[in-house]
Amino acid sequence: MALCEVLNSFLFEYDTPRIVLIRSRKVGLVNRGCSSAFSWVFLWEKGYQETDSVVSSVTTKVKGVTLTNTSTLGARIWDVADYVIPPQGENTVFVMTNVILTLNQSQGHCPELPDDQTVCKVKSDCVPGYVSTHSSGIQTGECVPYNSSINTCQVLAWCPVEDDSHIPKPAFLREAENFTLLVKNNIWYRKFNFSKRNILPTINSTYLKNCIYDAQTDPFCPIFRLGKIVEAAGQDFQEMAVEGGVMALQINWDCNLDRAASHCVPKYSFRRLDNKDSAHTVSPGYNFRFAKYYRNRDGSESRTLIKAYGIRFDIIVFGKAGKFDVIPTMINIGSGLALFGVATVLCDIVVLYCMKKKYYYREKKYKYVEDHELGVGETYGTNS
Amino acid sequence: MALCEVLNSFLFEYDTPRIVLIRSRKVGLVNRGCSSAFSWVFLWEKGYQETDSVVSSVTTKVKGVTLTNTSTLGARIWDVADYVIPPQGENTVFVMTNVILTLNQSQGHCPELPDDQTVCKVKSDCVPGYVSTHSSGIQTGECVPYNSSINTCQVLAWCPVEDDSHIPKPAFLREAENFTLLVKNNIWYRKFNFSKRNILPTINSTYLKNCIYDAQTDPFCPIFRLGKIVEAAGQDFQEMAVEGGVMALQINWDCNLDRAASHCVPKYSFRRLDNKDSAHTVSPGYNFRFAKYYRNRDGSESRTLIKAYGIRFDIIVFGKAGKFDVIPTMINIGSGLALFGVATVLCDIVVLYCMKKKYYYREKKYKYVEDHELGVGETYGTNS
Amino acid sequence: MALCEVLNSFLFEYDTPRIVLIRSRKVGLVNRGCSSAFSWVFLWEKGYQETDSVVSSVTTKVKGVTLTNTSTLGARIWDVADYVIPPQGENTVFVMTNVILTLNQSQGHCPELPDDQTVCKVKSDCVPGYVSTHSSGIQTGECVPYNSSINTCQVLAWCPVEDDSHIPKPAFLREAENFTLLVKNNIWYRKFNFSKRNILPTINSTYLKNCIYDAQTDPFCPIFRLGKIVEAAGQDFQEMAVEGGVMALQINWDCNLDRAASHCVPKYSFRRLDNKDSAHTVSPGYNFRFAKYYRNRDGSESRTLIKAYGIRFDIIVFGKAGKFDVIPTMINIGSGLALFGVATVLCDIVVLYCMKKKYYYREKKYKYVEDHELGVGETYGTNS
Repeated sequence: MALCEVLNSFLFEYDTPRIVLIRSRKVGLVNRGCSSAFSWVFLWEKGYQETDSVVSSVTTKVKGVTLTNTSTLGARIWDVADYVIPPQGENTVFVMTNVILTLNQSQGHCPELPDDQTVCKVKSDCVPGYVSTHSSGIQTGECVPYNSSINTCQVLAWCPVEDDSHIPKPAFLREAENFTLLVKNNIWYRKFNFSKRNILPTINSTYLKNCIYDAQTDPFCPIFRLGKIVEAAGQDFQEMAVEGGVMALQINWDCNLDRAASHCVPKYSFRRLDNKDSAHTVSPGYNFRFAKYYRNRDGSESRTLIKAYGIRFDIIVFGKAGKFDVIPTMINIGSGLALFGVATVLCDIVVLYCMKKKYYYREKKYKYVEDHELGVGETYGTNS
Repeated sequence: MALCEVLNSFLFEYDTPRIVLIRSRKVGLVNRGCSSAFSWVFLWEKGYQETDSVVSSVTTKVKGVTLTNTSTLGARIWDVADYVIPPQGENTVFVMTNVILTLNQSQGHCPELPDDQTVCKVKSDCVPGYVSTHSSGIQTGECVPYNSSINTCQVLAWCPVEDDSHIPKPAFLREAENFTLLVKNNIWYRKFNFSKRNILPTINSTYLKNCIYDAQTDPFCPIFRLGKIVEAAGQDFQEMAVEGGVMALQINWDCNLDRAASHCVPKYSFRRLDNKDSAHTVSPGYNFRFAKYYRNRDGSESRTLIKAYGIRFDIIVFGKAGKFDVIPTMINIGSGLALFGVATVLCDIVVLYCMKKKYYYREKKYKYVEDHELGVGETYGTNS
Repeated sequence: MALCEVLNSFLFEYDTPRIVLIRSRKVGLVNRGCSSAFSWVFLWEKGYQETDSVVSSVTTKVKGVTLTNTSTLGARIWDVADYVIPPQGENTVFVMTNVILTLNQSQGHCPELPDDQTVCKVKSDCVPGYVSTHSSGIQTGECVPYNSSINTCQVLAWCPVEDDSHIPKPAFLREAENFTLLVKNNIWYRKFNFSKRNILPTINSTYLKNCIYDAQTDPFCPIFRLGKIVEAAGQDFQEMAVEGGVMALQINWDCNLDRAASHCVPKYSFRRLDNKDSAHTVSPGYNFRFAKYYRNRDGSESRTLIKAYGIRFDIIVFGKAGKFDVIPTMINIGSGLALFGVATVLCDIVVLYCMKKKYYYREKKYKYVEDHELGVGETYGTNS
């Protein structure tokens, strides 16, 4: 019986707060003003949308050839297979712009590069087996002439050791400025099963063959001139080419999927990621070493050591898509109603503490009830 | 004294809205219906859970050998070190399926590939120093025979220049279809300090040695047959092998960590990332160039240029984990109560505007208070 | 006229709930306690902040040389170009610690490695053309002596085939423990346009040249000793060096941008990502194969196959930044007010169901209204 009654009252009763409705221009306007502000927040923040982050895949391809002419190498053509390392076109692509070649290295004994620790006068200045972080090899304990004026400790190393104290300037492959980078980017918003490519369907093949990205005239061309990327980030290509650096090519895919899919387009921007200020940095710029190994006629191994300076382009893809969805809408309407509550609280403060007739309003809004036996009658009488 | 009083009233008073409780079947049911819907949203959306995104690490390994037999190379075995480039097994792995080899290139002069811009009749058709995006080298200004019928401008380049106009069809390494890809994936939910591997603890070594992933029969085997991956994405391996392409192997780690950890298992899915439709694209498929460098007996350098077509497999890992946490629970209960407010607002509209006895209910709910001196008595009298 | 009236009442009226204010110590304290708890949640969870996830770029560089002395290779120096594969310093860097070299491989016929399937007694045990996942090449159908005691099927392969059954122990390049890893990390919080590098501006170049990261003494030095990284993750370097493994170097950039930018500093931590327990895994540790190709005097190709075991260091960057923003503040105040509603609901339960004078309070809070014509007079009379 009791359960039935409870259920009955649960299902068929409805409770709603009793409201004091105050007819006041001032307070009414304050209240509506606050409420409007909150509604606007809801719409502006797209509180009615479900959002998702982008999943992306990038392929890249560099094009261009250049000629160098030096005493050691003679006239030499450099093409993609020579200067893009590794050759794979992923979301990071490195273009060599400068290089220190150490030809014909082989395992053997030779003098170490001179510095504070390796310059020696007599044999006892060198410690056999000594090796530090900056060593080219392991010291044998001998002191041998490095050039006509300086002696250095002998090392067991790939000889001759690389001398990277003089970086070629201007950069060896300074014409890399004119190379082009093709970026193909495929994105996917998983929640909405929406995918798109940065080569828009409106673009035709003829255009793609010849276009170069330009923020004003060709904002959707996926082919970038390296020099322009660096310039758009406010940097100087020729300066950057000498010691190398890291550039970000950012693709922004922020989309409102409540609008037509054709409005969802990539926005490109450029930024330098490494610190130009070489005062505060170890190994400024960007470089790495690798070697090409050869087998000699006698079966021994030799190598060409390459210290490659260059610009690394990181393709960074980000974005957020939003689409109307009933559940976040409801949750946000909930929060929104609570915000109307904020408006009510603010107005209450005005009405109950700041207005002349505050005691009158308080009397209307509140009903005072005492917990003490004694007080009951009193308060009961005061309020209706 | 005043402060004491304020504190007293702050601490020991309690205010609760005065409620009109209406006993009405219709409105009661509407109200409970709305409320139930909102409660359901709260539970269904897992509003009581804290969520976190996955942090992931992937290693991969390809296995398989194949034999090719061509007039230029003779019978030749291809193993992992030959066709996986770069050899490193990270979250992107490239398997070469087709190749254009240009053997024995060396720096020198040779005729450019014929196209609109390079075909020439006389010397003056060629501009010394000319180089475009699609050039193999730098023009010397001479016009030389390319074959018996065509003359083209001479270039300084790696000679002979690569002729990639004919792609081998069927693909050179078409048997890559049978190669296998082992994917090892370790995920981590940082907030919950929960980590797991895609090789589940329930799987034994014997099974792992021989299993091949199959959505139905072996959904947790981490070894994939390349042909099956492509097929599962609705593509044709042999067709894709010719020009290459990019495939996504997606691992979904959505987990409800309120349940046992053993319920948190990877779900694999497959998608093609590049655009098959070659009409709307530059450089369709997926390929890149690299070279193997050799030293000749006379000390000069030569190379084998390899234009490698193939399939790149991007292992894309995503997921979201949820676990009960008291703070989001409270915040969401807050939003939820506000949603009950929506129910009340809806019911109020029904009761106060749509029902026959609306004026009667309004009188009960509202107490009208005028801001004007004059109106006070009037409204005061009307409402209780 | 009607519209005007509606607008008038919409703009110039203000409704606020009528409140029962109960003066009770017990309930008052409960109410204030709950409310305080909820306010604290709001502040502690930084509900007043807008948040953003980190965008990151990493470059790395390894330094160190070591000497090995074996019967096959003699004394040999290993430097960065030899043991870092690929040479590129991105967010994943591999340092070779152990190696199985197979020198002078060339295409030809030779006996397969012996296992269950390849050991043979007579020619008919071998199937011409047979190839499995674990094969080195393609069987020719002959049965040839592998060594003095065992015969195996002959294969067409790169010969001699690699024998990786015995892994060198201790590891070949065991001194990799002392190599150093420089990590340069640039992060960006896009919403706040805040970027920072892990080489803090307070660090000078002299310090950077010699420092080594240590959680206690040098927590901001970006140069790590490989041995220390492994040790900090609770692993043994020498043991890990044998079969290889995958380590995570985690950089945590959680920042409160309401405080000074100088408080936003990286926190490093270390974790092993692969499973040490080799019982439950295929191809334990971390290794991959690659080859160096040589041209012989007669023009044929040979290669050195390298099975490189080593430690891969994945630089994983994560973090969340928060900054005061008016919109999330308002939304969270909304949720917060709703939480105060939870406090009211809790107190109502106490007051209306648990206290002695519950009927008295109910009478004050509720006004009962019946939907039936009959009940109206009754309820109307009971409540004021």
